[in-house]
Amino acid sequence: VIMTRRIIALLTDFGTEDGYVGAMKGKILSIAPEANIVDISHEIMPFNIRQAAFCLTNCYAYFPEKTVFIVVVDPGVGTARKGLMIQTTNHFFIGPDNGVFSLIYEKEAFNSFEILVDTLPWEVAATFHGRDVFSPLGALLAADKSINRFLTATKRHTSFVRPIRKVKKKRFHIPVVHIDHFGNVILNFQRKDFSKMKTKKFGITVDDHKFGKIHNTFGEVSRGEFLLMWDSSDYLQIAKNGGSAAKDLGISTDSEVGLAL
Amino acid sequence: VIMTRRIIALLTDFGTEDGYVGAMKGKILSIAPEANIVDISHEIMPFNIRQAAFCLTNCYAYFPEKTVFIVVVDPGVGTARKGLMIQTTNHFFIGPDNGVFSLIYEKEAFNSFEILVDTLPWEVAATFHGRDVFSPLGALLAADKSINRFLTATKRHTSFVRPIRKVKKKRFHIPVVHIDHFGNVILNFQRKDFSKMKTKKFGITVDDHKFGKIHNTFGEVSRGEFLLMWDSSDYLQIAKNGGSAAKDLGISTDSEVGLAL
Amino acid sequence: VIMTRRIIALLTDFGTEDGYVGAMKGKILSIAPEANIVDISHEIMPFNIRQAAFCLTNCYAYFPEKTVFIVVVDPGVGTARKGLMIQTTNHFFIGPDNGVFSLIYEKEAFNSFEILVDTLPWEVAATFHGRDVFSPLGALLAADKSINRFLTATKRHTSFVRPIRKVKKKRFHIPVVHIDHFGNVILNFQRKDFSKMKTKKFGITVDDHKFGKIHNTFGEVSRGEFLLMWDSSDYLQIAKNGGSAAKDLGISTDSEVGLAL
Repeated sequence: VIMTRRIIALLTDFGTEDGYVGAMKGKILSIAPEANIVDISHEIMPFNIRQAAFCLTNCYAYFPEKTVFIVVVDPGVGTARKGLMIQTTNHFFIGPDNGVFSLIYEKEAFNSFEILVDTLPWEVAATFHGRDVFSPLGALLAADKSINRFLTATKRHTSFVRPIRKVKKKRFHIPVVHIDHFGNVILNFQRKDFSKMKTKKFGITVDDHKFGKIHNTFGEVSRGEFLLMWDSSDYLQIAKNGGSAAKDLGISTDSEVGLAL
Repeated sequence: VIMTRRIIALLTDFGTEDGYVGAMKGKILSIAPEANIVDISHEIMPFNIRQAAFCLTNCYAYFPEKTVFIVVVDPGVGTARKGLMIQTTNHFFIGPDNGVFSLIYEKEAFNSFEILVDTLPWEVAATFHGRDVFSPLGALLAADKSINRFLTATKRHTSFVRPIRKVKKKRFHIPVVHIDHFGNVILNFQRKDFSKMKTKKFGITVDDHKFGKIHNTFGEVSRGEFLLMWDSSDYLQIAKNGGSAAKDLGISTDSEVGLAL
Repeated sequence: VIMTRRIIALLTDFGTEDGYVGAMKGKILSIAPEANIVDISHEIMPFNIRQAAFCLTNCYAYFPEKTVFIVVVDPGVGTARKGLMIQTTNHFFIGPDNGVFSLIYEKEAFNSFEILVDTLPWEVAATFHGRDVFSPLGALLAADKSINRFLTATKRHTSFVRPIRKVKKKRFHIPVVHIDHFGNVILNFQRKDFSKMKTKKFGITVDDHKFGKIHNTFGEVSRGEFLLMWDSSDYLQIAKNGGSAAKDLGISTDSEVGLAL
């Protein structure tokens, strides 16, 4: 029989040309020689926590049980920001507590643990937790070794997701969660939220623009027109056929849009 | 004993930062946990079918027997374009029927099968066949499971390769098959075609430019001069030392050049 | 029991979109089907030997024993430049003799061997030693097959590292070894050299600029100021908070800076 090799999936903003991803891979394989390292991406825009979170949410659910995701988009490394291990029903997530796991918190039941960096019995460079904290802990997990002694349960973790606000009867404000590099505006409004409403009638308003229909493809509207679509993670997005919805509607990640039922 | 793990080689134009490649990898490993996933590239220019075809032809022959190639450069996803499984003597190729396998048809004996998407007993998103059609079928193949029930033999498949045309005795028109990102013009004329001619004398003409010799390296001509060379897949190419042959000769992928023997 | 698969780590300047990296991977897996291929990077700037050397030095030491590193940044392919196999205490390195292993020579005890390309009993394209020389030899090594018959011991190998020069008592000239893409100037002066000096007092001079302190982070100086730091491979670097030290100090890889104790 062949034992199935455990998967460690890597997601960083390091690029590859400086060798930092190589250092993480080397360290992982030194601890867990049979780990199956899978690159999700190393091309996240530097420090773009929201892009990393959306990249992760677009793929994590497809991975086998017990996959360990190591996410290193970490502008706060060297400061007091915590490190986290998040355990969901099927998966483990390891990385900084800066919001990269925001969408996991929205979609999964989970337990969260703070990494007690001071308890690690090996050398840790203050500026490279990807190599010295997250990779070795992920490798130990993948090698089926307990890391409990380096963790403590925590209830506090950072998220960039702001809740939908009810402003009056049948009137809500929906915050933006992400603007992708095409300028599509992703809203904190999931397909399952819509199902719960048990209505097909609704209106999204952005200043003077009103949307009452959810389209399936860009091609259903003319070039230059705005539209609503579900994105690949089932979040509602405002898009523009042939342009940037965010730019042309003056929307930032701090914005909210109106929802009327 | 160790059983050799089957290889699934991936070639897409997705980039990695949106998580779509990650979703394909997760799905493959959920079906075929022991598959050896190999990245060929995810940096094909968006929708550039010819670039994908040349990337594939530069590498496929070196892979072990039974390697499964999944190619997802798929501008037509969501339309009625077919999906294909191409079986050659040594390899399997899975992807859309849009020409990405054009050069495999030129170089290999093969059987071709249309994928009957409607028969797949799992959910398929209309806009992501890479994740929901090609990856699971490739994973099943790599896990040595039959996918015949999802296939039907077909004789029709799309190719961007136009044939060499005889225009009169010892006069031919050779179509362009690709212009690479250096502006090299790759012609539908392979080294084996040249061998068959059993002559060393020939002339390629592009407007006023005449070429009668095939060089081995750029360095054999002066900077700014045009030359003929065999490319790494043994196709004849027109290049320019220090410039773009396509641009400076006014050649597009619709062009033909003259061949006189 | 599972035998641990041997690691082959790849570092090239090929990009992935032309299929050349794919060809190397295919060839390796055809010879060593159980090899664990790890991508360090394929995004080294074309022909940038120093960048490749620093990328390698940032990661090689973390990899398990017997890892085979194949490095193909090879502007001289097709000329008479030698190919090398460098054996250190823990690792093997295979690639061209053009300086890509310069920093390995500085950091490790090693034996070096010239690859006798003419003795290889397979076809070798003059312009693609990455695929036809370095990959198959690396794969044979990873498959625990001897490649000694294709090697001869050599003492001569190319390095871009120039030594520290003593110019008078307690006065030295330190050469630049690399300028990274942020414009940080990396000096041929390692943390271990500094320890050996047994002094905390020192001065680095670049024209009118004097540095007497080594900082831990960019944030310790104001925006626009220059500073000294140890880089991630423990080389001393001159950096500028929010700018390019190399550009603003007029430093190139041919430069030297002054050191006074």
